[in-house]
Formats: sequence, structure tokens, C-alpha cells
Amino acid sequence: MLILGVDPGSRVTGYGAVSREGRRLLRVESGTIRLRSEQDLSARLGQLQQRFEAIIDGLAPAVVAVEDIFTSRNPRSALALGQARGVVLAAAGRRALPVHAYPPATVKRAVSGHGRADKKQLQRMVQVLLSLERVPAQDESDALAIAICHAMSAASHLRG
Amino acid sequence: MLILGVDPGSRVTGYGAVSREGRRLLRVESGTIRLRSEQDLSARLGQLQQRFEAIIDGLAPAVVAVEDIFTSRNPRSALALGQARGVVLAAAGRRALPVHAYPPATVKRAVSGHGRADKKQLQRMVQVLLSLERVPAQDESDALAIAICHAMSAASHLRG
Repeated sequence: MLILGVDPGSRVTGYGAVSREGRRLLRVESGTIRLRSEQDLSARLGQLQQRFEAIIDGLAPAVVAVEDIFTSRNPRSALALGQARGVVLAAAGRRALPVHAYPPATVKRAVSGHGRADKKQLQRMVQVLLSLERVPAQDESDALAIAICHAMSAASHLRG
Repeated sequence: MLILGVDPGSRVTGYGAVSREGRRLLRVESGTIRLRSEQDLSARLGQLQQRFEAIIDGLAPAVVAVEDIFTSRNPRSALALGQARGVVLAAAGRRALPVHAYPPATVKRAVSGHGRADKKQLQRMVQVLLSLERVPAQDESDALAIAICHAMSAASHLRG
């Protein structure tokens, strides 16, 4: 079962596909979609839609996982984030894919065991959990962490 | 030249297409896209994408006009609005359509002459300006007002 974690952003969207083989987690594919800042907002969002749809259709995940966002510092950044998040969620919805949302603290805990690891430590933990040769980039690592969180949560439901 | 005004919302998205014939403005088509609240967020946004793409491809406007949003009461509603707005803007961007954004006060002034008309008065003014038989619904009227604003602004640019 392929899990696609996504971390949408107004400039960079990270994605990471993870599968579970028995008790091991494997990274299938991950990367970032970086939008050209000199373009119009609508052109940027159109480009995000096009590239994310290509990724989702290429990978054909069984489920999509995102962060559940409760708080944001200000309405303006919430609007910008919402615009990218809407494009990503619509692509999943259009394909009738289930979408699971996890609070940031739950994602952190799934990867680090406790909730107090900093960003760099989380990247190293994602590397270790997926046996990656190098430390994944920030947005890529965040997306992989969300996929890992879903994989672990699904596993605990099965055991439950 | 067909102008498509759009007023995206997390539950209801209004749209209104207006064309200019000499000095007259004509309503070509308008309505609302209402999302079923019992569905998942991603399913709702996927439905918005599907229905808005059908409208934009059916009408083939030359330009899309939206409100420029500067303020929102709280980050949570800004995120929800952003998600719907992102879907609408991506559809326009994907089709390489120019998107113009107008501050709410500018839209109000274009329709009412001054900025102090209330919502009901604005709906009546949209009805009069477009010679509509009945008062358009709220979200439909808001979208038509945005299209009218762009038509008038484009006309004043032409006059210089």
C-alpha cells in the first residue's frame, strides 16, 4: 500500500511516497515542486496543479496524508498556504483518494518518539527510518514524515 | 470580450460572465457552485475543481476577475477561503488566462458609485446595471459585481 505524504506550500511543495514491507518502511519516491516566484499567482497554482497531478497519477497511491493545520501566525499566510493546499486536496478528491490529516505534533511524535526534536534532528530521523543514503531536503523530509506518520498510525489501528 | 467574475468560497462559489456591447454590459451566464457539506474536504474541493473547469471551458472567457483579499477575521477562515480560491486560480492559470484582482472597496465603488451601499443595495444595483429580470442571489451578485468592476476598469484604461 503506497502512502503519499504531501507538505503543500505557496512556494515549495514537498511530497514523499512510502510503502510498508512487513515491518520495514521504504521510500518509493520523494521530491519537491518549486514554483517560479516571478510568475503570476494563478500561473504558479496552475503549474502546481499540473505537476502534482502528474506525480499522483504516476505513483497511484492508495492514500494521501497531509498535516492538519490548526494555527497560523497570520491570515495572509494562511490564505497563501490554503491556496496551495486547495490545489493538492482537489487533485486527491478528484481521484476519490482518501485523505488523512494529522496534527503537526502527531507527525513529530511518530518520527521522533517524543515531540521535542528540532527540524534538523527530524530530517536525520526520517533518513534513518527510511534507510536513505543522504539527509532529505527540508520540504521533502516533512512530506516523508507525514507519510511515515500515516504508515505507523495505520499499523497501530491494525494491531488495535 | 467575455469577463468571468468569480467569488470563491469554502461552501459556495459564485460566478458571473459579463460582456460589453458598446456602452452596455450584458450578463451572459451566472450562478453558484454549492458544495455538499457532508462530504470530505478533499472531495468537496475536487467537486469544485470539476464544476469550475466545466464552466470555464464552456464559457471560454478572455479574462478572469476575482477579489483581492487583504484581510480576514481569522487564520482558520483564511485557510478555508484560500483552499477554494487556490482551486479557482489554478484552473485559470492552467489555461493561461489572465487573472485580475480588485480590492473589495474598488468592486463596491464600481457598482455603487460610492463605497457605502449595503449588500442588498449592491444586489439591486447589479440587477439594474445588467438589466436583469430578478435580483441575483448573493454569491452570484458578488461575482457579477467583480466582472462589472473589471469591465469598467478596462473601459477607463481604454479611454486613458
